[in-house]
Amino acid sequence: MTYCVGLLLKAGMVLLSDTRTNAGLDNISTYRKMFVFEEPGERIVAILTAGSLSVTQTTIARLRDTIEDEAAGTETPEPSILSAPTMLRVAQIVGETLAQVSADVADKLARMKQSATASMIVAGQRKGGAMRMFLVYPEGNFIEATDDTPFLQIGEHKYGKPILDRVVTPDISLIDAQKAVLLSMDSTLRSNLSVGMPLDLMVIEADHCTPSLTRRIEANDPQFMAMSEAWSEALRSAYRHIKL
Amino acid sequence: MTYCVGLLLKAGMVLLSDTRTNAGLDNISTYRKMFVFEEPGERIVAILTAGSLSVTQTTIARLRDTIEDEAAGTETPEPSILSAPTMLRVAQIVGETLAQVSADVADKLARMKQSATASMIVAGQRKGGAMRMFLVYPEGNFIEATDDTPFLQIGEHKYGKPILDRVVTPDISLIDAQKAVLLSMDSTLRSNLSVGMPLDLMVIEADHCTPSLTRRIEANDPQFMAMSEAWSEALRSAYRHIKL
Repeated sequence: MTYCVGLLLKAGMVLLSDTRTNAGLDNISTYRKMFVFEEPGERIVAILTAGSLSVTQTTIARLRDTIEDEAAGTETPEPSILSAPTMLRVAQIVGETLAQVSADVADKLARMKQSATASMIVAGQRKGGAMRMFLVYPEGNFIEATDDTPFLQIGEHKYGKPILDRVVTPDISLIDAQKAVLLSMDSTLRSNLSVGMPLDLMVIEADHCTPSLTRRIEANDPQFMAMSEAWSEALRSAYRHIKL
Repeated sequence: MTYCVGLLLKAGMVLLSDTRTNAGLDNISTYRKMFVFEEPGERIVAILTAGSLSVTQTTIARLRDTIEDEAAGTETPEPSILSAPTMLRVAQIVGETLAQVSADVADKLARMKQSATASMIVAGQRKGGAMRMFLVYPEGNFIEATDDTPFLQIGEHKYGKPILDRVVTPDISLIDAQKAVLLSMDSTLRSNLSVGMPLDLMVIEADHCTPSLTRRIEANDPQFMAMSEAWSEALRSAYRHIKL
C-alpha cells in the first residue's frame, strides 16, 4: 500500500508521501512516489502516486516523454503538463494518461485474472494562476481540494484522517501544515505495515512556483523520531488526563 | 457500516458498539449490535455484530432459539452457548451458526448478484474458566485476543485503531479501558458517517460472570460530549505544542 497526503492552504501547498511498495508481503521495496515537474518561477506540477507500481511508473514516464519531446521541438499530439494552458488541463492530461496506461495494463492482466489500478494527487500552480490540487481516480476522472475540504489523501488514508479532520483548515501556517501531515503519517506508519519510511516531504509556497522545501526523511531521522515520540507522549498524557 | 471494539484485560472485558445500520446512504436506521446471554454468576457471553443485518439478526435469533429450546427441555442437536462446556466451544457454535446463516442467505442473494456477510466479536467467561474473546469471521473461523493483542475490532476499524495501538495493554484499568474505547469510537464517529450514535457500552469484571456496567450512550449524552470535546481540545493543544 501507500499513504500520500496533500494540503491546499492559503499560504501554499504541503505534500507528503511514503515510499513503501510491495508485491506480496514478502517482497517489499522502496520507491519514490513524489514527482516534481517545474519551470522555476513559471510553473510547478507535483504528482503523488498510489497503486500499481507498473501503472504509476509508466504514467509518469509518458508524462515526462511528452515534456522531453516538446523540449526537443518534436510535435506532440497534446500539450505536456508543463505547457498546458491551465492546471485543470494538467489534471485532465494526467487523468487521460493514467486511464490509458491502466487500460493497456488491464488488457495484459485480464488473462491472469488480476487487476492493476492507481490514483494520483496532482498539485500545482502556474504563474498568474491559482494553486490547485486534484485527486485523480484510476478511471481518469478527478475531484479538487476546496476551502471546505483542504486536504486530499490516496492509499491507506483512514488511520491518518482523524488528526487532519481535527486540525487542518485553509488558514493554518505552512509549519503547522507540515506537523499535521507528519503526525497523520505517523499514525498510519504505526498502524499499517504496508506504509513505510523513508518519507518525502515538499512545501510549495503560494505564488513561488518552486518548492521552498524538499526533504527526504529517513527511518532514523532524529527530528521525525523526536516529533513522533513527543506526539505519543502528548497523546498518552492527554488520555491520562481525560475524565470519564 | 459499524464499529465495534472489545478489550480483554486482566481486570475484565470492555465492549463498545455503535448502532447505525444502513441499506444505502439514504436508508439509515438504529439497531442494537450488542447482545448478552447470561446466567448471572455462572456464565456470560456477549456478542457484538457487524455486517449484513439480515445475517446477524438471524444468527442471534438461532442462538437464542437453542437456549430457549434447552430451557423448555427440548432436545437440541448441539448445546446452546449457555450450556457449551467451554468458551472455545461457544466461539465454534457462533461461528458454525454464522456460517450456516451466511450460506442460506448467500443462496438467495446470488440470484441478485449481491452478497451478505457478517463478523462478530464473542466475549465471555464461565465460572472457573478464563475470560476469552474471539473475532468470528464470516466463514465461521475465528481468532482470539491475547496479551500481545488485547483488543479486537470489527467493522470500520481503521480510524479508531491508532489510539488503541498507543494506550491499550492488558494491565490498564477498566476505567482507562472505557476511555480508550470511547476515544477510539469518537475518532471513528468524526471521520465516518456510516458509524453513528447511540452507543452501547458494557463492562464485565473478571470472574463476576455478569456485567458490572451496561450503558446506552445517546447522541446528546453530556458526559460523552464533554469527553469528546476535552479530547479534541487536548489533541489540538498537543498539536500546537509539538515542535517540528
